[in-house]
Amino acid sequence: MKGKLYAIGLGPGGEDNMTIRARRCIEGCDVLVGYSVYIDQIEPFCSGKTLIRNGMGQEKDRCREAIRQAREGRTVGMVCSGDAGLYGMAGLILELVELEKLQEEVAVEVIPGITSAVSCSALLGAPIVEDFCTISLSDYMIDWEKIRHRIRMAAEGDFTIAFYNPRSQARPDYLKEALQLIEQYRGGDTPVGVVRNAYREGQQVRTTTLEMLDDTSVDMFCTVIIGNSKSRLCGGKIVTARGYAL
Amino acid sequence: MKGKLYAIGLGPGGEDNMTIRARRCIEGCDVLVGYSVYIDQIEPFCSGKTLIRNGMGQEKDRCREAIRQAREGRTVGMVCSGDAGLYGMAGLILELVELEKLQEEVAVEVIPGITSAVSCSALLGAPIVEDFCTISLSDYMIDWEKIRHRIRMAAEGDFTIAFYNPRSQARPDYLKEALQLIEQYRGGDTPVGVVRNAYREGQQVRTTTLEMLDDTSVDMFCTVIIGNSKSRLCGGKIVTARGYAL
Repeated sequence: MKGKLYAIGLGPGGEDNMTIRARRCIEGCDVLVGYSVYIDQIEPFCSGKTLIRNGMGQEKDRCREAIRQAREGRTVGMVCSGDAGLYGMAGLILELVELEKLQEEVAVEVIPGITSAVSCSALLGAPIVEDFCTISLSDYMIDWEKIRHRIRMAAEGDFTIAFYNPRSQARPDYLKEALQLIEQYRGGDTPVGVVRNAYREGQQVRTTTLEMLDDTSVDMFCTVIIGNSKSRLCGGKIVTARGYAL
Repeated sequence: MKGKLYAIGLGPGGEDNMTIRARRCIEGCDVLVGYSVYIDQIEPFCSGKTLIRNGMGQEKDRCREAIRQAREGRTVGMVCSGDAGLYGMAGLILELVELEKLQEEVAVEVIPGITSAVSCSALLGAPIVEDFCTISLSDYMIDWEKIRHRIRMAAEGDFTIAFYNPRSQARPDYLKEALQLIEQYRGGDTPVGVVRNAYREGQQVRTTTLEMLDDTSVDMFCTVIIGNSKSRLCGGKIVTARGYAL
């Protein structure tokens, strides 16, 4: 092996929500690569290391650069917000390493992190306590028809649902449509939680219901969690009953 | 407020996979309560603290004891493996605090942790990279019929699926039945990952396919991840394509 490439999940927000292992792993890297916001976030404890930032939409370039650095014998960390795999870069790195037949040159290891569904659930109380799913409302890589189908299946299956990338200027109506689809299966009083800038400056945590949620108040910095049939609002929090007899 | 009660997710296995915040939070507690295995796990850095262990199936007693300790003015941590909410104790604690009208006496805060789906996905490569769901195959609190329905919806929705509590002596045939349900929607060559004792001594990581998996090789110490239509086996790992044009 020439080099080592870690895909590292930072968890949400600041350093606190990173695992001890992720922190130690970053400390052992020569080079850190990532979307500029995440590199800024780890910069305070990365003095002396090479930091490579790039922008949104440049995921392939970012992964190729990380692989190139590792091929030159360096220990490289690709940092991702939340988890390294889920809506992160671990998969793309493994795909590129295989495509370029570099499995003998670059050892890839994935360091998991706390994903947004779970970290936002904690801020809302306990909406996610049993079977749940995540659905990204971005149609950048998946057809909106397929996303709609998944929403229907998740709603019919009574999963608690966490929406990632819930609403952007490029697709302002998807969240509204998603909520309407869910209302075909769940009552308008179903609890909904919206967390904006989780564990960051300006964090906002709101609870409401399916029928009361103003979808235009949601943007790309939000995660939206839709309760299931056993969820209820409880003193400003959302709690889903596991089913213990109390 | 008289006391503070943290529901703390430890993540998988040892101390390394705990967040920095979870570790700091435990250090600030007077009393730690939990299932005996998890208390054993944190004991090395808990000298001088009161440690309260109890057994499987005693979840209500455990939460009531934690609440009682907090009402006496102590700072209490209820430790959970993986996340504190998902298949954890945070929901039950909030339900009991509400039921006993103790919201003014006990402040509850949830400290998230890395759940098994995400941590096992990292060990398998990158099977979970986009929309996925978790399903527990334990029928302790949910009817098997409802679980079956969820499996069908998850399979039809092309979600990557993580099975928790996949098989026990009390219900030896559920996993087999679950796999058969999924085969109605996905090919027999769909990648399957099985992780046993993740991040613990004796960790085992295996990849196979829907048709090749011997369900009897799976027990309660395992998490099983079923790929979706974009997953494939790739040099001993499972990788799900996000959809980048390569």
